[in-house]
Amino acid sequence: MEKLIFISNDDGYNAQGIIQLAEIARKFGDVCVVAPDGGRSGSSMSISSHTPVRNTFIKEEAAHDDKGSLIIWSCSGTPDDCTKMAFEKILPRTPDLVLSGINHGDNCAINAHYSGTMSVALEGCIKKVPSIAFSSGKLAANANFSYMEKHVESIIQMVLDNGLPLGVCLNVNTPDTENLKGIKVCKMGLGDWKEEWQERTHPHGGKYYWIAGYYEPYNKDDKDCDSWAYQNGYTAVAPIHIDMTAYEALDALRILEKTKR
Amino acid sequence: MEKLIFISNDDGYNAQGIIQLAEIARKFGDVCVVAPDGGRSGSSMSISSHTPVRNTFIKEEAAHDDKGSLIIWSCSGTPDDCTKMAFEKILPRTPDLVLSGINHGDNCAINAHYSGTMSVALEGCIKKVPSIAFSSGKLAANANFSYMEKHVESIIQMVLDNGLPLGVCLNVNTPDTENLKGIKVCKMGLGDWKEEWQERTHPHGGKYYWIAGYYEPYNKDDKDCDSWAYQNGYTAVAPIHIDMTAYEALDALRILEKTKR
Repeated sequence: MEKLIFISNDDGYNAQGIIQLAEIARKFGDVCVVAPDGGRSGSSMSISSHTPVRNTFIKEEAAHDDKGSLIIWSCSGTPDDCTKMAFEKILPRTPDLVLSGINHGDNCAINAHYSGTMSVALEGCIKKVPSIAFSSGKLAANANFSYMEKHVESIIQMVLDNGLPLGVCLNVNTPDTENLKGIKVCKMGLGDWKEEWQERTHPHGGKYYWIAGYYEPYNKDDKDCDSWAYQNGYTAVAPIHIDMTAYEALDALRILEKTKR
Repeated sequence: MEKLIFISNDDGYNAQGIIQLAEIARKFGDVCVVAPDGGRSGSSMSISSHTPVRNTFIKEEAAHDDKGSLIIWSCSGTPDDCTKMAFEKILPRTPDLVLSGINHGDNCAINAHYSGTMSVALEGCIKKVPSIAFSSGKLAANANFSYMEKHVESIIQMVLDNGLPLGVCLNVNTPDTENLKGIKVCKMGLGDWKEEWQERTHPHGGKYYWIAGYYEPYNKDDKDCDSWAYQNGYTAVAPIHIDMTAYEALDALRILEKTKR
């Protein structure tokens, strides 16, 4: 049986990044895209609790030559909704692989938390399917991601060959450079955003704000983290765990267990 | 100087849970609430990339007797927006403590990923402030959370006394029972949702879906996880790390570093 590969993203089903990722994925099997009907940047793992979700069939292409088949659906929900919807209502069976992206913009470091791209991989991981999120430093709507194709293919091939540990998915970030140095396996960088709000005034008065700012690592000299590797010309691959437990903190907290009702 | 405590939630600034949490917090210092202008359940760590964000001043109460002051703002954004907004545009200084909730509904186990309540604590944690998310099994809009007040106070007191490790916040879930057995310190439970979509038909035709379903742990006999403790009458306290790196997976992935450009 051909491999079945599910793909979503947070830039929408007709973004260049997902179109190009689907074409790469078709070298490995049949592809089903279920992706948002428009941009959902920064949607994290949000789900549509307050609004109904609709699906729209877009197109289907049969397998030919060495390429697997392609089915594309759009969905009115978040990237995480798309993934949950695909697994329960659209895919013919549990896929062999979940891919997300290629995102127009990086999702290094703690930005994985805010990322809709990453949410697809986390959701696939929760559903026990090997899952990879791909992001690029190229932001333009008409970006060409062929410069990173070899890295994307290597990572997909490795995951199809070896799988991933249960509960672990990959966050892959490739910088916008024609001189990629290689792939670096990294931890998730830690840091925070600065000057996060830009103020504007409405034509009728009253202030409003756009989220903006710049990311600042806690420690910019930490060469083991994905944001450093990305800044320095490498495709950064960070293994991300769905289990966020701070195991090292458990013992010190047990004084709380002495609390009386 | 009095302690300054920031509070947000994902049920909105006028939800019973946040009103009651603010009253508890005023026993420990001055309180500033910046919370969404309505329900934002399931908003995860989403940020408003595509829409502007507005703030509205609601009210102010001076400190009196043994209670700290209270300032309340509402915000048109997500819980994570509220937290970022408060830190940069509303709070007079970096707070000593970030609280979230009390959420109407639990956020045990992997549901921490989807939770807007939890996003406030994660964002506070990213900003290096000790942060706690409180959730309850009580769903009703008019719920009375006084049954869990002692636990909330103990946990706040412990965190003010001892702090939390950098990068670690707490996910606290109290079941809906008058017979709480005590507090249990736990790891985050792992599992997945089943039957996630309920289908409906629009009056003019066409299907749409509501997200729903039920949570199923991977291993229901795992007594070390928060969902077990919660199901069995304990307030479950799980330390949650903003660093999601799967350190144990790093070495096996380094074969990727042999990929040629």
